[in-house]
Amino acid sequence: MNEMTAPPRAARLTSHADPAAIEAVTRALAARFGNRLVTSQAVREQHGHTLTWTPNEPPDAVVYAQSTEDVADIVKLCADHLVPVIAFGTGTSLEGHVNAPLGGVSIDLSMMKSILAVHPEDLDCVVQAGVTRKEVNEHLRDTGLFFPIDPGADASIGGMAATRASGTNAVRYGTMKDNVLGLTVVTPEGEILKTATRAKKSSAGYDLTRLFIGSEGTLGIITEITLKLYGIPEAISAATCQFPSVKAACDTVIETIQIGLPIARIELADALTVRAFNNHAKLGLVEAPMLFLEFHGTEAGVAEQTQRFGEIAEGHGGGPFQWATKPEDRSRLWQARHDVYWAHQTLRPGVRPLATDVCVPISRLADCVTETACDAEESGILAPIVGHVGDGNFHCGPLVDVNDPDEVESVKNFLERLVRRGLEMGGTCTGEHGIGQAKMKYMLEEHSPAALELMRTIKRALDPKNIMNPGKVVAV
Amino acid sequence: MNEMTAPPRAARLTSHADPAAIEAVTRALAARFGNRLVTSQAVREQHGHTLTWTPNEPPDAVVYAQSTEDVADIVKLCADHLVPVIAFGTGTSLEGHVNAPLGGVSIDLSMMKSILAVHPEDLDCVVQAGVTRKEVNEHLRDTGLFFPIDPGADASIGGMAATRASGTNAVRYGTMKDNVLGLTVVTPEGEILKTATRAKKSSAGYDLTRLFIGSEGTLGIITEITLKLYGIPEAISAATCQFPSVKAACDTVIETIQIGLPIARIELADALTVRAFNNHAKLGLVEAPMLFLEFHGTEAGVAEQTQRFGEIAEGHGGGPFQWATKPEDRSRLWQARHDVYWAHQTLRPGVRPLATDVCVPISRLADCVTETACDAEESGILAPIVGHVGDGNFHCGPLVDVNDPDEVESVKNFLERLVRRGLEMGGTCTGEHGIGQAKMKYMLEEHSPAALELMRTIKRALDPKNIMNPGKVVAV
Repeated sequence: MNEMTAPPRAARLTSHADPAAIEAVTRALAARFGNRLVTSQAVREQHGHTLTWTPNEPPDAVVYAQSTEDVADIVKLCADHLVPVIAFGTGTSLEGHVNAPLGGVSIDLSMMKSILAVHPEDLDCVVQAGVTRKEVNEHLRDTGLFFPIDPGADASIGGMAATRASGTNAVRYGTMKDNVLGLTVVTPEGEILKTATRAKKSSAGYDLTRLFIGSEGTLGIITEITLKLYGIPEAISAATCQFPSVKAACDTVIETIQIGLPIARIELADALTVRAFNNHAKLGLVEAPMLFLEFHGTEAGVAEQTQRFGEIAEGHGGGPFQWATKPEDRSRLWQARHDVYWAHQTLRPGVRPLATDVCVPISRLADCVTETACDAEESGILAPIVGHVGDGNFHCGPLVDVNDPDEVESVKNFLERLVRRGLEMGGTCTGEHGIGQAKMKYMLEEHSPAALELMRTIKRALDPKNIMNPGKVVAV
Repeated sequence: MNEMTAPPRAARLTSHADPAAIEAVTRALAARFGNRLVTSQAVREQHGHTLTWTPNEPPDAVVYAQSTEDVADIVKLCADHLVPVIAFGTGTSLEGHVNAPLGGVSIDLSMMKSILAVHPEDLDCVVQAGVTRKEVNEHLRDTGLFFPIDPGADASIGGMAATRASGTNAVRYGTMKDNVLGLTVVTPEGEILKTATRAKKSSAGYDLTRLFIGSEGTLGIITEITLKLYGIPEAISAATCQFPSVKAACDTVIETIQIGLPIARIELADALTVRAFNNHAKLGLVEAPMLFLEFHGTEAGVAEQTQRFGEIAEGHGGGPFQWATKPEDRSRLWQARHDVYWAHQTLRPGVRPLATDVCVPISRLADCVTETACDAEESGILAPIVGHVGDGNFHCGPLVDVNDPDEVESVKNFLERLVRRGLEMGGTCTGEHGIGQAKMKYMLEEHSPAALELMRTIKRALDPKNIMNPGKVVAV
């Protein structure tokens, strides 16, 4: 392109896609993909948002891609017809990420299940986007290596990269942004590119890898991921410990991290959640805040870490501890934490909890959790809290009868106050769930107009037709 | 802006800035900044590239900024007149990053020395761009915290962020991309924005922080940085150990990392460098490859790490070890490594080594180092090698008489072969030095046309006037 002459401005999607264009695309996809193109209502609805209360907005068609080239072909076709494309992994996102507000084609990546390479000496592996985190670790079972990021759900690696996922291990191993070496991406023009080599670090140009991680399919579609791996620790020890207050638990965590104890997981459950655990699993615990912990290292290292942690916790009134080192005992101990979604439902049978998350500087975590619990109580809302407390990130899951408009209104207001409380404390409106549709309104509260405009400039420059998951994140 | 109508295309710098525009800017800067605007030849040349053989291309003027607002005012003025702006920290970059090929104004940030906040509970601090890494750690001395990234030179934090610097501690603590929570940036329009909150993680939109880290001043100017901090380890132990071959040393490193030993530094010196150490400090070492190591942790943890490492090294023929735990002994032991630049000069007195770096997957490191050493010997070039071997990143510093054109030509060819060797082994043309001017030609060899075009799209979108450090990185 001659850079001195402006190109003709490309057509750009600003409202629902043209039905004729959708029909043309669907016909062409059927011809190319046969029965991998599905337009049944059930499958389309399953590929719209299915969790929480964000309304389901199904795509017009679902196509099951098997390769990067498939994705490129689909994107090219949709680009030609100005039809949206929405990447779909396992559908476990929580903020309306996979809805199709302007219609379009959902590209389901769940058949892209190949583990393309494992490089044990380099501690990395290359996987297709549809491989789930459990499948990665299953495949690695005999190598002595593992991939640590665990957002709870058995999400696809592509989806985890696209939403910058993290979870319980992030305090030690970081988030997806820290554990991806490079990506293969299909651009909004349907071109295929790699963002980086397998070198562990590089200063060669702009960080395209991190640009796509967390972009939620709005700048391109991630089809292959090179993941960092870690040696499975020689020893793992898990524990639970209760505290007189959320503040005491948080202060314990702050002190632990400050002295550099390399704790692998440190999860908070508030008193209401402990009540739910008691309901669910008859644990007979005191209804007081609780930490779930895990230590990774050598035998001696783990022994030392647990002893140090015990001393710190004791100084803040924590105890008694329940320890587990054998795998089966550890699993039992973590089972309560993993079952938290079901446990929370016991607090109000027949009603689903609605998950949201915020993340604040850890010094403000106790305040944020405590004020949120008070707000819930004053508002007559059951809103149990669990958190990745080492990162200042917590989840609040109000139990709401979605058929009661007054209650929905009350909970919506409560959640707005929660996000604003997090932002006022110097935090972010989402630590790991992402923006999707539901948190777009907070983007301008968290980011300055100039920062948000910069994001929009990037979106417009990379996706001038506005076909990549439109109506999400920074919606231009 | 109405998004449906294209704005008038802004004027765009494509060749050397107009002398009249430079004069107008210089006059306005003199009026605004008084004697903080300097145009003397000596100062201008000192603000062009001064290290290695890339020719010095001085800016037309140097202005010493004291605040983010100063930087914003300068950028606005330059944008109005289509005059380049080049950020300058300590001038320790190695690939021509601070040259002014199209003329323009160097914004010297070295007076921006404020440490704006330290948050011990959150393990972070906020500093102005001109603060150096040693100044950060000096300021933190009594807090029990430290900032680990150490690229060797006492570089400014702003420059380290802009070039995605790393260094000896990266194997444990990561690079600048892993240790910055957020940035204050002046955009090419002279607007001020923050890229992120102080939350430890976020999924709220595009990763602007990582976009600016490593962008070398071509997308905006970093004026403030929020850094992650760490607790000073209770125990630190350092060691050196020699090996029969580079491969034996590399295999030791691979095995160490695979079993998850959290080694803090692991540096390789080749046999030629060991000869240089002997020349420089009369160490009387065997002329064989050598590792410099450092372990961080608790007393017991470090003792265990060192024992494990000793066993692994022995299995690869490594030894004898020299250990140091007291600070003064550690300093003495690391002194040789820190003096490597001076030591290398003893190999050919009167001639300066020219530093470059590549980074490969660690499984290829031994091959890459060995082949490079063979190439140097066959080419009659003295090219000692030191490396951040835990990351697969190494530096090669050929000693070249820059007044001998034949020798310069020969070394240039040798360095090209080095970069291509790294790329062929799946690596990057630079692990930590950056692209600047000197490595631009490798961008298209490392990145695909689509990836490079994406970087250029970003550059054009964010800096449509092409005034931000033009002629560097992706030069559009």
